[in-house]
Amino acid sequence: MPKMRAAIFVEPGRIVLEDKPIPDIGPLDALLRVTTTTICGTDVHILRGEYPVRKGLTIGHEPVGVIEKLGSAVTGYHEGQRVIAGAITPCGHSHASLAGMHSQDGPGTRHGWKPMGGWKFGNTIDGCQADYVVVPDAMVNLAPVPEGLSDEQVLMCPDILSTGLGGVESGRVRVGDTVAIFAQGPIGLCATAGARLAGATTIIAVDALPDRLAMARRLGADHVVDHTQQDPVAEILRITDGRGVDVAIEALGTQATFAACLRVLRPGGTLSSLGVYSTDLTIPLAAFAAGLGDNTIVTTLCPGGKERMRRLLAVIASGRIDLGPLVTHRFKLEQIEAAYELFAHQRDGVLKVAITP
Amino acid sequence: MPKMRAAIFVEPGRIVLEDKPIPDIGPLDALLRVTTTTICGTDVHILRGEYPVRKGLTIGHEPVGVIEKLGSAVTGYHEGQRVIAGAITPCGHSHASLAGMHSQDGPGTRHGWKPMGGWKFGNTIDGCQADYVVVPDAMVNLAPVPEGLSDEQVLMCPDILSTGLGGVESGRVRVGDTVAIFAQGPIGLCATAGARLAGATTIIAVDALPDRLAMARRLGADHVVDHTQQDPVAEILRITDGRGVDVAIEALGTQATFAACLRVLRPGGTLSSLGVYSTDLTIPLAAFAAGLGDNTIVTTLCPGGKERMRRLLAVIASGRIDLGPLVTHRFKLEQIEAAYELFAHQRDGVLKVAITP
Amino acid sequence: MPKMRAAIFVEPGRIVLEDKPIPDIGPLDALLRVTTTTICGTDVHILRGEYPVRKGLTIGHEPVGVIEKLGSAVTGYHEGQRVIAGAITPCGHSHASLAGMHSQDGPGTRHGWKPMGGWKFGNTIDGCQADYVVVPDAMVNLAPVPEGLSDEQVLMCPDILSTGLGGVESGRVRVGDTVAIFAQGPIGLCATAGARLAGATTIIAVDALPDRLAMARRLGADHVVDHTQQDPVAEILRITDGRGVDVAIEALGTQATFAACLRVLRPGGTLSSLGVYSTDLTIPLAAFAAGLGDNTIVTTLCPGGKERMRRLLAVIASGRIDLGPLVTHRFKLEQIEAAYELFAHQRDGVLKVAITP
Amino acid sequence: MPKMRAAIFVEPGRIVLEDKPIPDIGPLDALLRVTTTTICGTDVHILRGEYPVRKGLTIGHEPVGVIEKLGSAVTGYHEGQRVIAGAITPCGHSHASLAGMHSQDGPGTRHGWKPMGGWKFGNTIDGCQADYVVVPDAMVNLAPVPEGLSDEQVLMCPDILSTGLGGVESGRVRVGDTVAIFAQGPIGLCATAGARLAGATTIIAVDALPDRLAMARRLGADHVVDHTQQDPVAEILRITDGRGVDVAIEALGTQATFAACLRVLRPGGTLSSLGVYSTDLTIPLAAFAAGLGDNTIVTTLCPGGKERMRRLLAVIASGRIDLGPLVTHRFKLEQIEAAYELFAHQRDGVLKVAITP
Repeated sequence: MPKMRAAIFVEPGRIVLEDKPIPDIGPLDALLRVTTTTICGTDVHILRGEYPVRKGLTIGHEPVGVIEKLGSAVTGYHEGQRVIAGAITPCGHSHASLAGMHSQDGPGTRHGWKPMGGWKFGNTIDGCQADYVVVPDAMVNLAPVPEGLSDEQVLMCPDILSTGLGGVESGRVRVGDTVAIFAQGPIGLCATAGARLAGATTIIAVDALPDRLAMARRLGADHVVDHTQQDPVAEILRITDGRGVDVAIEALGTQATFAACLRVLRPGGTLSSLGVYSTDLTIPLAAFAAGLGDNTIVTTLCPGGKERMRRLLAVIASGRIDLGPLVTHRFKLEQIEAAYELFAHQRDGVLKVAITP
Repeated sequence: MPKMRAAIFVEPGRIVLEDKPIPDIGPLDALLRVTTTTICGTDVHILRGEYPVRKGLTIGHEPVGVIEKLGSAVTGYHEGQRVIAGAITPCGHSHASLAGMHSQDGPGTRHGWKPMGGWKFGNTIDGCQADYVVVPDAMVNLAPVPEGLSDEQVLMCPDILSTGLGGVESGRVRVGDTVAIFAQGPIGLCATAGARLAGATTIIAVDALPDRLAMARRLGADHVVDHTQQDPVAEILRITDGRGVDVAIEALGTQATFAACLRVLRPGGTLSSLGVYSTDLTIPLAAFAAGLGDNTIVTTLCPGGKERMRRLLAVIASGRIDLGPLVTHRFKLEQIEAAYELFAHQRDGVLKVAITP
Repeated sequence: MPKMRAAIFVEPGRIVLEDKPIPDIGPLDALLRVTTTTICGTDVHILRGEYPVRKGLTIGHEPVGVIEKLGSAVTGYHEGQRVIAGAITPCGHSHASLAGMHSQDGPGTRHGWKPMGGWKFGNTIDGCQADYVVVPDAMVNLAPVPEGLSDEQVLMCPDILSTGLGGVESGRVRVGDTVAIFAQGPIGLCATAGARLAGATTIIAVDALPDRLAMARRLGADHVVDHTQQDPVAEILRITDGRGVDVAIEALGTQATFAACLRVLRPGGTLSSLGVYSTDLTIPLAAFAAGLGDNTIVTTLCPGGKERMRRLLAVIASGRIDLGPLVTHRFKLEQIEAAYELFAHQRDGVLKVAITP
Repeated sequence: MPKMRAAIFVEPGRIVLEDKPIPDIGPLDALLRVTTTTICGTDVHILRGEYPVRKGLTIGHEPVGVIEKLGSAVTGYHEGQRVIAGAITPCGHSHASLAGMHSQDGPGTRHGWKPMGGWKFGNTIDGCQADYVVVPDAMVNLAPVPEGLSDEQVLMCPDILSTGLGGVESGRVRVGDTVAIFAQGPIGLCATAGARLAGATTIIAVDALPDRLAMARRLGADHVVDHTQQDPVAEILRITDGRGVDVAIEALGTQATFAACLRVLRPGGTLSSLGVYSTDLTIPLAAFAAGLGDNTIVTTLCPGGKERMRRLLAVIASGRIDLGPLVTHRFKLEQIEAAYELFAHQRDGVLKVAITP
């Protein structure tokens, strides 16, 4: 039985590279030979035991690769084709999927809905920090990479760009809007880039790291606020001349940023939340106008499926945005433990790492 | 100077009927002779000092009446015409109004937005628990009452129906949806009726009072849940076979109902909040899927303006719903202090009172 | 090889009942034993050769039945289960499906879109006027029938109700709207019922047949207009006091009704078109305000897929509408040629026929 | 009585500069001293008698100016302030305005709706090709010009940009869409710029004039098609690899471009129409999929009101687009007849002229 290498979860604090058999595939699956993948903040939560997964699971949900083998019922693709799959891999036939909410995909449970059910790679099935990964429901999930795009150019599509832009879309950002984005990690940066793409004309990016604020400017921010130097709420109200923002995007997952988003909204404004929280959240009464401010709070889990990936690949292919600079460090798969070490501690100005098996 | 009677706020605990001059009007105003009005839960908050207004202000924001006098610049109406005005009286020219968000009307402040700025009657200007009321921006706010409709039939339009239906609309209830409404006071009942109007096919009403639950059934609920007898969250999940509801409507303004709404939502579902809260709110982490459930929380302040009123009057005129039974008690204006006494203590099965000057 | 009976297209003017082998199924299919089906206006177009299909094709796209056999890869269902499938049977993995537009399903062509590509039964694959039918992509398309509902009660869900309500949804009919529906055949009647379900409060139904106008009233019309007795445009403008309607629904497929819809729209109103046209259409300049009326024309092909069917079954199960009376005539499968004869000539007040194998 | 100069319509073929009294203003009006204005294609229709207006009417609907005088009831502005007003000047209190459809503003008629009723300047009231213009409902319509922006920079906001971007918004262009724009006159160019602003990633501009195609590229087109050299339908299908476009924008007002738009749409795509037509339109049956393509046709009249202008001014102030180059020629007001001569005959590569009183 041929073997491959895979980064597996062993116990809190330990993700290690081990050998595993190259998996078999079912009739609707595809086997992908991974050419590039990356590590996500969520993977660090898994590493730390903050998000529980089963022992032995292969981690990783952002694959770029080449089709090695197709299931017997899969048509429309060919072996050797360069593709990506989204971090979210819906089945296409759940009630959630058919209602257009692919991320809450839940066949067989709660009438076809399951919270976060679309997130399978490195969560409920083996992920892609490995030589090979099985993509379930291949015809729903495999998106060919347009010619001329490198692995690193499309590496943000499966999760980071889909999520960041998703926050912009859920917030219904429109041409001429004023938008604030709290936190400029990879997802916040993609939300900043997405707000620019969607036509926001006053974009305010908040973070504490100069490198991230500089990257925010490069990707489209008109103003940057270092929250260690200035109260971001006061500063955003100053920039907007007291009006507040149309849409505030939360991209960190903390109470402080969540509340700050509410505090900078104009009446009728929208808080679009992308963060993964680890505690109950408090809505401050005044910032919520006691429930009378016509406000909206909306959360978004990374949209997936091949049509979503096609759209994002079209964005990249158009050259409208260049997310290549988000890749700050490169590792071989055999160095993945070092990559986790660097990424988990946000050393050396790391934004995203590229892992190549 | 001719006098009229008006229910004015004196101090916490005291709203009294006093004489005041019949007010003058400006060029864009109309003077309305009030024929019927009512008391709202918000008025009780004012009475108790929980919502501060200035001393001497006339309370009340739900007028049915007859045009007594029109401002010099007002056209399209005539004296003697039967009209209503919404509880919310936008100016029509603020940035908020022009953007379609009339309730957050704020000329001259925060660039034309002000939280709750559209609510003026009995809040920032004299209200309608009086013989006469000045309606500002009359051409924006006066809606003729269709022939054949009584004062009591249209008495819910200015606030209760507009708010209740507004919660249904903000929640984007559609044909075939499952909807739960927490609390069946007048606004919750109108949300129940509104969910029925909008085509929800499984409607679950929650309250503790048998009369209110009976009225909920009459207005369209398919299921009623007495939360003192059953855990409403468990019961709603049972009724929906574990699936949860598409939309949950909060119509009370408490932490308990807010959290219960989140707990009964299916993934991707919407909490539509109508309550006026008096404390910070807590979002339970699990019910919020840690921010990954594709959920929406939306709040709605009573929509106003004459086009809104026209639409609601069309609903009433169509006979699709009959809100007459919500009027459980009737008082003369001179008895308004007794009406407050009854209404504030929810005595005698009171839902809404009709006050006739 | 076991045989079954099937109504097949032979040549223009001839659909006949013949024996065919009971078909095999692939891994994703289900074999349904049809218990009730019906004839659609589209089938009559096929009969007359106005819509071309290949010789020997089994006609019919509205199946109610029992699962006889499941493909090897199908999970979540069991043999013997009572189900329906929509007239439109998307694959669930085309770009169109994943974008939520299941009716334009087109794997492998035009990047995953194909005009009307979701319509397969009795069009591109064998249909259900037969003892058995193969349902493709069973997990996408099979919807269990709730207990207590008869075949005839759910017979309108696969096409007639989905289309009629679809026209209401595409037209964005909302609570308090004024809606006119041109033609009260089965689809127009379901649009009338759908407008009522969605909260329209002035519903005007147009047709020439008294039985159909009477049924329109029963299903929710407030006004009926016999266009042979009155100019429907003038009459609708009279009923609406010159204002026009918010939404006009075309349910016949002719130039006359299409133009009449435009003529009764208020500025900013929407024409929601359901008809199948057989000629180019003309937009009258004045009714279109020379392109400056902020009008919308939207067309809808019957929405399909199991989530759509689940929603429609919930509508029927709720008792909100009763479409049973649309079944005016009943035939055994062996009488299907007579059923076509009656239905094609609209004899004897026929609305829909029930065919039972 | 002080006099001013104004370009008035005399008879078909003749718009001449004459003296008129400087007009009085009512309580809600403002008198604007015009500093820059321009000529629109619609003005040429008026000149030619193709669009009838009354004799003696001052033409022009795109004012940039300084407040000379404010009506007695106008607050929130001051004399000497630099402002623009939209081509469309809604009243703010019609049913249309209150429903958010300001362009179909119609107080007192058809229940508050009137086709094109919001277009008043140079149509139903005196326009702005003059030394002074009266702006009706000043508080609804006057938008201050941000500091640092020149007259020519904001000259496209009142009509050209509002209309062009409006077509993009009505077509619901979103990030990653493919959009074709037929005709690259000033409005088509602004639609091209708007599609870029809104995130379309494949933008195809069609025209016959090399200068206009070059300008289209400068404003955001990825591909340009000279329809005299290539069949634009075939070329667009080639560029999109047979898929078609998500949104096609018609910016000319002819049958040929209207039909071409339909022919390049993918199934489910939207035709967003901006042109002013002069004949009935024909919808080709096949391009319309016989009514079964889930297509939308939507028309847009220039959105107006000060909130709209504020948003557009924010777009200009952000520097995201530079419409300055659209001004190809400059004239003094006394030369306006020559300006009409040049513009009406599209001589000398003219796109827009700036007229300065």
